[in-house]
Amino acid sequence: VAYRTIADDGNAVIILDQTLLPDAAVERRLTSLDDASNAIRIMQVRGAPLIGASAAYGVALGLQAAADDAALEHALTTLAATRPTAVNLHWALDRMRRVLAPLPAAARLEAAWREARAIAAEDAAANAAIGRHGLPLLEEIAKRRAVVNVMTHCNAGWLATVAHGTALAPIYAAHAKGIKLHVWVSETRPRNQGRLTAWELADAGVPHTLIADNAAGLLMMQSKVDLLIVGADRIAANGDTANKIGTYLKALAAQAHGVPFYVAAPRSTIDFACPNGAAIPIEERSSAEFGDAGTDTPVANPAFDVTPAALIRGIVTECGVIAPNDLQAIRP
Amino acid sequence: VAYRTIADDGNAVIILDQTLLPDAAVERRLTSLDDASNAIRIMQVRGAPLIGASAAYGVALGLQAAADDAALEHALTTLAATRPTAVNLHWALDRMRRVLAPLPAAARLEAAWREARAIAAEDAAANAAIGRHGLPLLEEIAKRRAVVNVMTHCNAGWLATVAHGTALAPIYAAHAKGIKLHVWVSETRPRNQGRLTAWELADAGVPHTLIADNAAGLLMMQSKVDLLIVGADRIAANGDTANKIGTYLKALAAQAHGVPFYVAAPRSTIDFACPNGAAIPIEERSSAEFGDAGTDTPVANPAFDVTPAALIRGIVTECGVIAPNDLQAIRP
Repeated sequence: VAYRTIADDGNAVIILDQTLLPDAAVERRLTSLDDASNAIRIMQVRGAPLIGASAAYGVALGLQAAADDAALEHALTTLAATRPTAVNLHWALDRMRRVLAPLPAAARLEAAWREARAIAAEDAAANAAIGRHGLPLLEEIAKRRAVVNVMTHCNAGWLATVAHGTALAPIYAAHAKGIKLHVWVSETRPRNQGRLTAWELADAGVPHTLIADNAAGLLMMQSKVDLLIVGADRIAANGDTANKIGTYLKALAAQAHGVPFYVAAPRSTIDFACPNGAAIPIEERSSAEFGDAGTDTPVANPAFDVTPAALIRGIVTECGVIAPNDLQAIRP
Repeated sequence: VAYRTIADDGNAVIILDQTLLPDAAVERRLTSLDDASNAIRIMQVRGAPLIGASAAYGVALGLQAAADDAALEHALTTLAATRPTAVNLHWALDRMRRVLAPLPAAARLEAAWREARAIAAEDAAANAAIGRHGLPLLEEIAKRRAVVNVMTHCNAGWLATVAHGTALAPIYAAHAKGIKLHVWVSETRPRNQGRLTAWELADAGVPHTLIADNAAGLLMMQSKVDLLIVGADRIAANGDTANKIGTYLKALAAQAHGVPFYVAAPRSTIDFACPNGAAIPIEERSSAEFGDAGTDTPVANPAFDVTPAALIRGIVTECGVIAPNDLQAIRP
């Protein structure tokens, strides 16, 4: 793959503008705090891990003109207000604050770039590990199935991260090992992130089929799905998981048909301070995401839902596959 | 409402072209068997009850030039091949055959128009009765809720029938009685029939909100849905119900949250010869329904799914609200 979701040249942050994908792959240079917060808000960058890295880079951009306490606080506050659900945003900003606040202002800019790069590099490494830890789930199914049929939701591929992806990392790992796969790609209304997943999978040569979100239940009833893997935007301490709206419906269907349902996410997506799913804020986005319909009829557009821990077989992290009720074991 | 879904002037059948709604309300004159079969196939007319009436009218159109046995057989066969899932199509064609086949050719054309009009009139009457029988379900909830929140899927309003609608008939009946209602309208990808429902409800002054299909689970988890009512394309003898793809996911969520789930359909939608849901043919439609995405990526587009009888609280018919395991009681 020729593109990276995010990179920097020491002065600017270069992103792949995901609002134009899959029709066009256009890179944008972000040079200010406003550029970065806007990119997160309008989803030029998206996916919980990538939102985290983008926010870290946004702090560096915000300190370029001045790096005093007021500038640091302004950067952190502005970025924190972009999107409410993905906890990686706050995780990354908390980490930037912890590193930068104690430093003299003159040392902060260089330290901000360094820490943002570290966050990005660690995300890539964590996701590679998620691929390794998730691979056996697919290998196990491959022992009894000529083709392993995986279903996912939204985009939790490399586009949603700094590299490798979360839910798609084990799929890429299995594909690289020659396991025969087919991926059911859910359209993911209203933003159609499934088209990003189809674009990624086509590029990687992984067989896949796009479906309406509505089709997930029928396909499971017809025994056409061996495994469900999705990403996450925030995992509560008890394992309840917020992910893209529609994930919960797939989890219910998976339970009804005995299809194993896994969440894949780096540990930075686990909010150990959040007791359960009811405490996770659910972002309400613009009716404009429904196109014309959003202008002439009342629209509700919650962007995430919560899948109860009881429906989740395991959470694939860089620390291994963890039972949702056992997350304390990997608390940092 | 100024429009009718279907009518005739003795020479032609006049339909409201639903492929142009809600953007434009355009009537079309169908003057041949090919016009009628094409209108059903490309969904200028849609909804199981309306498909049945349209097929009946299509037989009349097919007999205008000649009404010998060959012409009758050709009309019945051509119309039967248009869409596989909605059983009302076959029910109406069987009825036309029973009436027309014994008649001399010279008497068939007039009898065909007469029988098609009878089928249409009976559909309107059946749906009015569905409204009356379903009304108490909403009245019951209104006793304990200031606003009754109903969720539906696809379009099972007057647009899907000759008049009154099926799932929306009780909603219109309750609205007429002054019960405060709000309807969650699911977009219904990939064809967006939810926009037809929003258009109908806006026209009738019924408060409603358009949502992504994906949002149904979250709204039920948040206790924002008091009742689910959907239409049906074919109900098997055991109560298993084929309806627009995505219905099953809503039924699973309704079960998980104790939300009563009802199907509303005239008796002509019950296929007493079909033992269960597994025997219902599921139509696969064109990838073109996904727009651009359908041209550059593999697409699967099953148009219906099957909701098991166990998830259905009752089936609202013109004979009353029937338990899904008690359909034999209303077998004609």
